[in-house]
Amino acid sequence: MRSRRAEVVAMLAAADGGFVSGERIAGALGISRTAVAKNVEALRSLGYGIESATRRGYRLASLPDGLLPVEVERRLSDPFWSRVEGAAVTGSTNDDCRRLASSGAPEGTVVVAGEQTAGRGRMGRQWLSPRGGAYFSVLLRPSISPTDAPPLALVCSLGIASALHAAGAPVMLKWPNDVYLGMRKVAGVLLEMSAEPDRVEWIVAGCGINVRRSSGLALDVATLDEVLPASPAEVAALALDGIAGVYREFVRAGFAGLAERYGRFHLLTGREVTVRDATGAVVARGEATGVDGAGRLLVRTDSGVIPVTAGEVTLADAGGAA
Amino acid sequence: MRSRRAEVVAMLAAADGGFVSGERIAGALGISRTAVAKNVEALRSLGYGIESATRRGYRLASLPDGLLPVEVERRLSDPFWSRVEGAAVTGSTNDDCRRLASSGAPEGTVVVAGEQTAGRGRMGRQWLSPRGGAYFSVLLRPSISPTDAPPLALVCSLGIASALHAAGAPVMLKWPNDVYLGMRKVAGVLLEMSAEPDRVEWIVAGCGINVRRSSGLALDVATLDEVLPASPAEVAALALDGIAGVYREFVRAGFAGLAERYGRFHLLTGREVTVRDATGAVVARGEATGVDGAGRLLVRTDSGVIPVTAGEVTLADAGGAA
Repeated sequence: MRSRRAEVVAMLAAADGGFVSGERIAGALGISRTAVAKNVEALRSLGYGIESATRRGYRLASLPDGLLPVEVERRLSDPFWSRVEGAAVTGSTNDDCRRLASSGAPEGTVVVAGEQTAGRGRMGRQWLSPRGGAYFSVLLRPSISPTDAPPLALVCSLGIASALHAAGAPVMLKWPNDVYLGMRKVAGVLLEMSAEPDRVEWIVAGCGINVRRSSGLALDVATLDEVLPASPAEVAALALDGIAGVYREFVRAGFAGLAERYGRFHLLTGREVTVRDATGAVVARGEATGVDGAGRLLVRTDSGVIPVTAGEVTLADAGGAA
Repeated sequence: MRSRRAEVVAMLAAADGGFVSGERIAGALGISRTAVAKNVEALRSLGYGIESATRRGYRLASLPDGLLPVEVERRLSDPFWSRVEGAAVTGSTNDDCRRLASSGAPEGTVVVAGEQTAGRGRMGRQWLSPRGGAYFSVLLRPSISPTDAPPLALVCSLGIASALHAAGAPVMLKWPNDVYLGMRKVAGVLLEMSAEPDRVEWIVAGCGINVRRSSGLALDVATLDEVLPASPAEVAALALDGIAGVYREFVRAGFAGLAERYGRFHLLTGREVTVRDATGAVVARGEATGVDGAGRLLVRTDSGVIPVTAGEVTLADAGGAA
């Protein structure tokens, strides 16, 4: 459900630099022309260059600098996303989204940012989030127990990978929640939840996608613009629509129905891997054969196939490269 | 580690209505007499009736109304509790403690209240919290995965039950996290956590103990004063020290070493029970035989012993009474 503002921008953008009359916008959105003028004012204050001319209406002359929520919202197709918040720069979209979750925001709430000053990765690590990336967090409220939550990281990364793949980027997945381009990371997901022992209250999934190369980015990561010419806002909207679709499947039938699809994108399948736990101890070593219905990585070891619930995976033949 | 304020009250209370010189207090706490006077002022503003007389010092004439943090803090023995916050009345100590957790408060932080206006129970239910009860939430940061968190509800209820039992109240436990006096509930624990799929960030355990009967309390619950003459502050301090001791064991050796002790307090052992999940569907029906090393309730059914991870238990012979 797009906001009025996003609808106004969408209509102006569709005119491709041409004028759209206030009357036409008012008619399409079912609001008064005064309300249209107010929305245009609000958009101008956000940095949108909107020209107006008597009898001709409004014209979108320039877009705001940075990744603004409206830029993502106007490109979303899936009605699952109920509300898009955010700012060009924030500390961490996950922190912002957790605050909204704690104060009762509904499932489908999104927080986007074009830059994070304190982006977080898995296990308390930093996630470099310079300008040029698409950073967003989504709020989910599935009726599951915390034990069944881990596959949701796979759901989000599969949603991102599917959407980018459909748009022409040959990305793959690295279990549990990274998206790769070749052998370099291009996106990642951080899943955080609030729960009672037998009931998830909410899940916030933070997604970071490297879209354009910037000086703040590590050299060993990939950026999407190597294969796909799209702006951070376009990439964020694509990825969000992808996540909504896969999440809907998860709610309907659990991860079991998605395991095979995840497996098709999985770059580790058939390769020798080593899985380590948080302390660095080896959990399993052998050939990764796939992912099971609970989202666990299956590793064929000398003593049989082990389903791995959590851990860090490295390729046996590539040291710590993957 | 008690605060200065709590130390001052503890010294005055130990004099049992007699005077204690400012010099003696200053010496015992290693602070100046001016600092003593400042602490006395702060305590008076909290409602403590502290008289002062030239050359004789200070005398505790009356205690503040309601359950204040200092009243709990000055009675704590276990150094695990690093900081006691709270107020006579709050919305929910769990909400307050979650806020502290989110902003980085250390393990061992406690929030107490003498009354909650929006107390919460398990599964989103209300927890009636009128004056006369002891309500507190504790912040724990164990290095475990969310999958291993459920036993912590048992750890807290066992801590409360052990301490109350040692003080002379013949309480028992009802799996997973209620404390009973006879066949009526006298205390309960609500466990909430923030986690990544493979790492708990923090756990907030909210504890509510019915200490004195008040008009806001349901008739079918028990109050501790039926068997133990102790104030809400005394009960909270007892229970907190009990929890710290059992939690220390849990951190050292997991729940496996506590299962037998939990079983000794368990009122369901040997009885016919029915366990239902959140939707009301029957998960298991049979004789409760104990609790296993993962904190699961063991139920001997027609098709063997089933370990139950979560659910609501009712006694087969007593309908919904227990």
